[in-house]
Amino acid sequence: MSDTVKYLLDESRIPKYWYNLAADLPVPAPPVLHPGTMQPVGPDDLAPLFPMELIMQEVATDREIPIPEPVRDVYKQWRPAPLFRARRLEKVLQTPAKIYYKYEGVSPAGSHKPNTAVPQAFYNKQAGVKRLVTETGAGQWGSSLAFAGALFGLEVKVFMVRVSYNQKPYRRALMETYGASCTPSPSNETQAGKAILAQRADHPGSLGIAISEAVEIAAQRDDTKYALGSVLNHVLLHQTVVGQEAMAQMDMAGDYPDVIVGCTGGGSNFAGIVFPFLGAQLRGGKKVRIVAVEPAACPSLTRGQYAYDFGDTAHLTPLTKMHTLGSTFTPPGFHAGGLRYHGMAPLVSHIKQLGLIEAVAYHQTTCFDAGVLFARAEGILPAPEANHAVKGAIEEALKCKAEGKSRTILFNLCGHGHFDMQAYIDYFGGKLQDLDYDESELAMALAGLPSVKAA
Amino acid sequence: MSDTVKYLLDESRIPKYWYNLAADLPVPAPPVLHPGTMQPVGPDDLAPLFPMELIMQEVATDREIPIPEPVRDVYKQWRPAPLFRARRLEKVLQTPAKIYYKYEGVSPAGSHKPNTAVPQAFYNKQAGVKRLVTETGAGQWGSSLAFAGALFGLEVKVFMVRVSYNQKPYRRALMETYGASCTPSPSNETQAGKAILAQRADHPGSLGIAISEAVEIAAQRDDTKYALGSVLNHVLLHQTVVGQEAMAQMDMAGDYPDVIVGCTGGGSNFAGIVFPFLGAQLRGGKKVRIVAVEPAACPSLTRGQYAYDFGDTAHLTPLTKMHTLGSTFTPPGFHAGGLRYHGMAPLVSHIKQLGLIEAVAYHQTTCFDAGVLFARAEGILPAPEANHAVKGAIEEALKCKAEGKSRTILFNLCGHGHFDMQAYIDYFGGKLQDLDYDESELAMALAGLPSVKAA
Repeated sequence: MSDTVKYLLDESRIPKYWYNLAADLPVPAPPVLHPGTMQPVGPDDLAPLFPMELIMQEVATDREIPIPEPVRDVYKQWRPAPLFRARRLEKVLQTPAKIYYKYEGVSPAGSHKPNTAVPQAFYNKQAGVKRLVTETGAGQWGSSLAFAGALFGLEVKVFMVRVSYNQKPYRRALMETYGASCTPSPSNETQAGKAILAQRADHPGSLGIAISEAVEIAAQRDDTKYALGSVLNHVLLHQTVVGQEAMAQMDMAGDYPDVIVGCTGGGSNFAGIVFPFLGAQLRGGKKVRIVAVEPAACPSLTRGQYAYDFGDTAHLTPLTKMHTLGSTFTPPGFHAGGLRYHGMAPLVSHIKQLGLIEAVAYHQTTCFDAGVLFARAEGILPAPEANHAVKGAIEEALKCKAEGKSRTILFNLCGHGHFDMQAYIDYFGGKLQDLDYDESELAMALAGLPSVKAA
Repeated sequence: MSDTVKYLLDESRIPKYWYNLAADLPVPAPPVLHPGTMQPVGPDDLAPLFPMELIMQEVATDREIPIPEPVRDVYKQWRPAPLFRARRLEKVLQTPAKIYYKYEGVSPAGSHKPNTAVPQAFYNKQAGVKRLVTETGAGQWGSSLAFAGALFGLEVKVFMVRVSYNQKPYRRALMETYGASCTPSPSNETQAGKAILAQRADHPGSLGIAISEAVEIAAQRDDTKYALGSVLNHVLLHQTVVGQEAMAQMDMAGDYPDVIVGCTGGGSNFAGIVFPFLGAQLRGGKKVRIVAVEPAACPSLTRGQYAYDFGDTAHLTPLTKMHTLGSTFTPPGFHAGGLRYHGMAPLVSHIKQLGLIEAVAYHQTTCFDAGVLFARAEGILPAPEANHAVKGAIEEALKCKAEGKSRTILFNLCGHGHFDMQAYIDYFGGKLQDLDYDESELAMALAGLPSVKAA
């Protein structure tokens, strides 16, 4: 058998619709609440921030949502993305397990994020919007929206979490090359940013703060909307092209996963690969173990509360029921900036609550150990976020080895690490620390959760 | 018509042989000379540096050289590489030209270089070699050999030109992640390096010096061989998978190039896309205009002499007849480090001398202008080297516009710029200068060319 095993679909196999998990849930997810009234929001409440097509997708219950042709056309640049069998990694691990990975780093921005950036730019352009404002952590999302904005002729403004802005100047340069502007957050351009800086002038920032800044700017002008790279239902929806393709590719391989592994920050790459398989299971298909891997320094699924909370720090967003560390929680500055979010996608939280998925947390050095092992075996350098999924998959493969059992493991390699080499430099230089969050800060943030009467 | 037009071949269409231009040349290329005797070298003379399979490829005259299955197996990870029609770029330029580009940035190391790194590692492994030593400029080659070494279980040591070593710490980190070691050149590890440092302690290095260091180390031990990323016949041979695939993809498009454009440093990516088309022309096929684009700061084809010269600065290598700026010439530290070589592949020089190709030189800022325009239109960020090819292709397209004629332009987008973002930061910061070489240094280097009696 060949060492390189790649399953490639032709262009006609790019999904024609996004898969909507809401159609197959045994219990619907709790409603989203208005931050003023604490009552369920309606579409009009969200209209200042999003175009109506995306709002309707946010609340849709149809199983299949058609992908517009202009979006499929841009997807063609890199989709269908390849699925690999990790034969060389299996040999290195001496495991009887079969390991497959879906590789989303083939997109021009280097991760799964363009899967949603492109439709978001498309729907906004269609609605006459001139400018999109967003936040970014590690910069994967910001550069993806910058890419999509360039293709559809939209101005893009990105608030980048300051610690990442300083760690990753190359990501910023990529956004600027695509024509976007990039501002470190917290900034003095917004009330939300000024309030934070007044408390602490050298604040490292967080996704929660950057979201507040972006939402504040977007709400000021009619021609300007907000875009979010994870968490929301419509974002997770767009990512289901990943899992749909993976299902077809596993079928080509004549195999089906026993375990699916993904890393979770806001939840979108995880949902992308998991939801189509989970939907099949909920409709009576084969049961699959599903493992979410999160950073020990920002462990919303394993240490957070399942409660209503704000998506941002300044409390400008609606409230959603999710696993949260509290909206005032600021995670330490570890390298997987894309996973530094206090909350979790409501849909991912909901299926965790329903017992349909498991979650596990790892520290960053053990994830980098896994990533370097993977790079040397498979030749692809994972992003720090993706290293969490690699670690999770390797653990599952080693369990198979210990038990002397073969299982089929599928994981989502959601992006490459080309813009994250400082993290690898720190790793090889022995400077990468296993950062932990501050227990008392977490307790305080959780104590500050908004009190919401059962909806 | 769709804006994204991608021509993708399935795995079975990865070429089964490399195409050898030597079989179709109207006049054979001049022989390679031994540095001691100035007589043509035989295979045994090269045996300390290369395994015999590669030496035989260096002198082969068969048109087709079979690609070993283990090499094709690794190629499968990213090959066949896509060919795109640049519809969005055509619209931005408002040109009647049709622009196609072959994209080699899809390889794990991000450029065309793994096309030869993989067979070189394979043949060395097969010959019982334990360790490969090489040089690298921008790091594209070094990281590619590091990648190939990791897959075949070979130790890899890279001498990296000091100016690039300092400019591109992320490339170095990539090599180290793949398990290679990376030393800035000139170094104190070799006699060649020490001699240079004795003259100038802060010497920025050059490919010619780094080659001397690598060759010196490789010649010391039987289990250690040398590997070169460009220039030599066997390296150019391996790159012909690019052009062979492009021919099949142009056929899918129902089109054929009127003009082919590639950037030239050592000549390998250029040869890769050009040779199969040129071979077809020499066998009676359609005539194609072929344009080599080089940096104005290191213009071997447009300002060098066609003469016998050494490949390295310390004169450890054989002499080849090529377009050269003189082996002591040190180009200024512009950003396309992969193009900072004093010489040119003998085969590329030979076809230039035969009038089969044209050459043009551009300064770096105009190439970055072209690269940014391309990135915003097509969504892919080119490497600084590739920006030269983009510039050349855009110039051809603008000529079509001025003449009101449609022509079919094909260029090789040989790599992405993910590890070269400092160059883009400098460009946007207005710090990128149009460096020129020192005229008197060039005159001196050319005056120092070895005197060789007509072979």
